[in-house]
Amino acid sequence: MEKGTLLYEGKAKQLFQTDDPEIVWVEYLNQATALNGAKKDQISGKGELNNQITGRIFDYLKSKEIKNHYIKQLSANEQLIQAVEIIPLEVVVRNVAAGSFSKRLAIPEGSPLKSPIVEFYYKNDELDDPMVTEDHIKLLEIATADEIAQLRQMALEVDQALIELFDSMEIKLIDFKLEFGRQNDGSILLADEVSPDTCRLWDKKTNEHLDKDIYRRDLGDIIPVYQEVLNRLEKRGE
Amino acid sequence: MEKGTLLYEGKAKQLFQTDDPEIVWVEYLNQATALNGAKKDQISGKGELNNQITGRIFDYLKSKEIKNHYIKQLSANEQLIQAVEIIPLEVVVRNVAAGSFSKRLAIPEGSPLKSPIVEFYYKNDELDDPMVTEDHIKLLEIATADEIAQLRQMALEVDQALIELFDSMEIKLIDFKLEFGRQNDGSILLADEVSPDTCRLWDKKTNEHLDKDIYRRDLGDIIPVYQEVLNRLEKRGE
Repeated sequence: MEKGTLLYEGKAKQLFQTDDPEIVWVEYLNQATALNGAKKDQISGKGELNNQITGRIFDYLKSKEIKNHYIKQLSANEQLIQAVEIIPLEVVVRNVAAGSFSKRLAIPEGSPLKSPIVEFYYKNDELDDPMVTEDHIKLLEIATADEIAQLRQMALEVDQALIELFDSMEIKLIDFKLEFGRQNDGSILLADEVSPDTCRLWDKKTNEHLDKDIYRRDLGDIIPVYQEVLNRLEKRGE
Repeated sequence: MEKGTLLYEGKAKQLFQTDDPEIVWVEYLNQATALNGAKKDQISGKGELNNQITGRIFDYLKSKEIKNHYIKQLSANEQLIQAVEIIPLEVVVRNVAAGSFSKRLAIPEGSPLKSPIVEFYYKNDELDDPMVTEDHIKLLEIATADEIAQLRQMALEVDQALIELFDSMEIKLIDFKLEFGRQNDGSILLADEVSPDTCRLWDKKTNEHLDKDIYRRDLGDIIPVYQEVLNRLEKRGE
């Protein structure tokens, strides 16, 4: 398999063509961003850690019968994925109040939510990723009512699977962001990544952040923290 | 019926007890506010106009079998209503893109929406009335799933009735905000007001604003504009 032309450059990853139009080559970057890109830094080692963490988690999710785009690792910071048309929604699942959610609704950070909350944000940097309802998603023709129901269902299944996984790693899953893509036949796959960049993870005993809040809130170096997440995944045998 | 103790003072109305616990005395104020109260002015005549406009519209909605709290006019700026426990949601219905909606989703003001959009905002001045989804409303125990479905259904019925009413007055109904209340038996009534303070109304021929955007956007004096809405309602025989 050959690495071809650059297809897309995001904040944390570059996507390249391969000789198979159904397969995309992903390179995880060392760039960290926050505040919709207003804060930006190069952090050596971050790309490698997120590539390996995401690969292991996507393999685990496959074992839980959650269809996703992941194929295999290519190198420390590269992986192959199935080509999909990304649905421009950030699907957020929350188990415990934190971050912007706590501020918007005045629910103290750390408060458990009695059932998981699913939120949709329109992926649009110019608009600063506004929260959208099902009415908005249909109006903007981002997804059909059936697809929205499917995204919600899949997001809740991912939540259950990840809660179990992280619990076995002595980690509380606070919240996370997912992205999904459509295949040519219209079927939906979990896409993008699942890593400490996209999840809020708190150590079960100490409540320490094991995620990008370390960077967002200037709490220290993310590398040892992301490495700790990878170590616990490896220890578990993922 | 006697005007009793002040029960509640809002930005545009005062509510007083009466000798009947099921009935509340409303006085419409001359205060205009925008930007969550950051902009505030006394505008002589506004209370009288909104009291009379709301009374006529609530009577019209009753004739369309939409249950609401309105009983009768008491004076130019006072009316009687049924006591309800207000559900702390602003239920917004949009037929045409305008205002914050246009900005949030980059849909130019004036674009017709292919079907009406219903949005819920949590009535909370300290939080600046954040938009909330059904998940949030259930989490915050503001309303049950059944009540949310009922609010949405009633809001769409009000929309159809108001589109017809305003159309016959040569006015386009762009969007509006409703509030609802619970009676002791749990049944839901349309409450609050329906006026140029709570609706965006554009003249059908000229697209001129006949609503509070005149005040919000410093476009001139609201009194002749609100008077024009009342005149067209009276001409129609409401």
